[in-house]
Amino acid sequence: TSSPLLAPLLTPLEFTILHTLSVAAKSTSYSPYSSFRVGCALLTSSGEYITGANVENASYPVTTCAERVAFCTAIVQGHRGFKAVAVATDTDRPASPCGMCRQCIREFCDLGIPVVMFDGAGGWSVATLEQLLPMSFGPEALGVTAQTGTAVAEKKE
Amino acid sequence: TSSPLLAPLLTPLEFTILHTLSVAAKSTSYSPYSSFRVGCALLTSSGEYITGANVENASYPVTTCAERVAFCTAIVQGHRGFKAVAVATDTDRPASPCGMCRQCIREFCDLGIPVVMFDGAGGWSVATLEQLLPMSFGPEALGVTAQTGTAVAEKKE
Amino acid sequence: TSSPLLAPLLTPLEFTILHTLSVAAKSTSYSPYSSFRVGCALLTSSGEYITGANVENASYPVTTCAERVAFCTAIVQGHRGFKAVAVATDTDRPASPCGMCRQCIREFCDLGIPVVMFDGAGGWSVATLEQLLPMSFGPEALGVTAQTGTAVAEKKE
Amino acid sequence: TSSPLLAPLLTPLEFTILHTLSVAAKSTSYSPYSSFRVGCALLTSSGEYITGANVENASYPVTTCAERVAFCTAIVQGHRGFKAVAVATDTDRPASPCGMCRQCIREFCDLGIPVVMFDGAGGWSVATLEQLLPMSFGPEALGVTAQTGTAVAEKKE
Ligand SMILES: [Zn+2]
Ligand SMILES: [Zn+2]
Ligand SMILES: [Zn+2]
Ligand SMILES: [Zn+2]
Repeated sequence: TSSPLLAPLLTPLEFTILHTLSVAAKSTSYSPYSSFRVGCALLTSSGEYITGANVENASYPVTTCAERVAFCTAIVQGHRGFKAVAVATDTDRPASPCGMCRQCIREFCDLGIPVVMFDGAGGWSVATLEQLLPMSFGPEALGVTAQTGTAVAEKKE
Repeated sequence: TSSPLLAPLLTPLEFTILHTLSVAAKSTSYSPYSSFRVGCALLTSSGEYITGANVENASYPVTTCAERVAFCTAIVQGHRGFKAVAVATDTDRPASPCGMCRQCIREFCDLGIPVVMFDGAGGWSVATLEQLLPMSFGPEALGVTAQTGTAVAEKKE
Repeated sequence: TSSPLLAPLLTPLEFTILHTLSVAAKSTSYSPYSSFRVGCALLTSSGEYITGANVENASYPVTTCAERVAFCTAIVQGHRGFKAVAVATDTDRPASPCGMCRQCIREFCDLGIPVVMFDGAGGWSVATLEQLLPMSFGPEALGVTAQTGTAVAEKKE
Repeated sequence: TSSPLLAPLLTPLEFTILHTLSVAAKSTSYSPYSSFRVGCALLTSSGEYITGANVENASYPVTTCAERVAFCTAIVQGHRGFKAVAVATDTDRPASPCGMCRQCIREFCDLGIPVVMFDGAGGWSVATLEQLLPMSFGPEALGVTAQTGTAVAEKKE
């Protein structure tokens, strides 16, 4: 947790909780086709944690990745600001979000948000969204005001 | 609520709650691109209600429909049995789930599950999954034991 | 080829060509993840045949099914009218298009279009789009003029 | 066409053809929902050019982007090696592929492949796949031999 990139963005406690929750979320995965479990945990601007896991389908393109499950859950709960994304897999080395999920993160987060990737062996790495999806295309390209960087929306539920 | 199809499957109270929750879920939609709000409510075998709404993206194919948001939320919470699906829109006549969502429902529900569709004008209609997605393709085609019709899984969270 | 449903819609020769082409298209599948090959052939209103096969991806939701590959190919070639869809798999019994592909067919075809499904053992079955995706939601729900039933568009290439 | 990045990878003629074809492909787009036309042209290792455009759907997630239409077309034609990807839009500044499409490119291309982005005003920019999708996840993570960097496969049609 001594990454120079993370230090100003996350406290050690936040990092530890993101680690614990994203790893735990792996056990909620429904992945009978790939047997590739992914857990995700989000930290919202208001200090809440929201988790998700991959939910596969016999028709592969109908699958929803862990990151998108977590973001969709958060969005329908009214959250509009995020401080960090954490992803956990069973791989030997940290696995990054797929491109489709990077695009989902792009819709709702500032480019500087840290994405922390935990592997199954105790290792981790971190990158900002800007590093993972440079030169990106987002809501503003279609005339929609970006949702990023705002305070948490009034929760609607 | 006097549909002969629904009578043996849902109580009037369950129907009313599904109506109320799916309509309320519309207000949690993130749909700046289509302005087409959809709310969804699921009734699980254990008697819990889980909601979702559509979450769009500047890259349209990265959008997740309301039904899939609700099912993914339920699945990662450990639910594996469902009694009913309700969908609510602002349209004049009841709108049905898109084909992609029918396939998602297929992964997790018995063919006889009722899908209740509420419009924005007080009307509704109902159809079973088998009626909405006949001759369907599911987990068993890929050698995966279908998740449908089982008791609710022990919740993992 | 004596199906009462097909007789007025397809000639025996058209049926035979659709069979041959959809089966042949299976060999063009890129499906290292599922090992589930699908071939598709379309007959356009102008009498042309267009084929496709499933193209999978390490990120499963990025997969494109055979039917959508065929339709996208046809659409960008300028076709806007279709007479039949054929799908071929290696299964023991005819496999139908997934819900996502039924929705794609819905965008571009009349509800009466026949979808012929060929299995790997010489059998086949047929259903209309209306039978496969009843109570469907299409372009008109979003104020877009449906592309179906029109003459073939002037080809743009 | 004097980019130091492109010089060793594409000849001026190849660049010009990619420009012309990707811009022309925009007119084959089916995009009544977003009115955002995208054209794509691929240059294969064998020197062929393959084009695509975005094909939208009333159910937004059923949309297929231009890049994926082009790659799926190429793959089912048997191509397995690519030299360049070109994308053209009507925007004022060059628009990059969405994350989902970057993941599709990742399945079939070397990390060093140039992606050239043409805007609607005569401008362009270029980036390699590695720059657009760093720390990426591909076929090898699931035990599948990457298709990239190989000679063109024997065409199957
Ligand atoms: Zn993903
Ligand atoms: Zn849907
Ligand atoms: Zn499909
Ligand atoms: Zn895309």
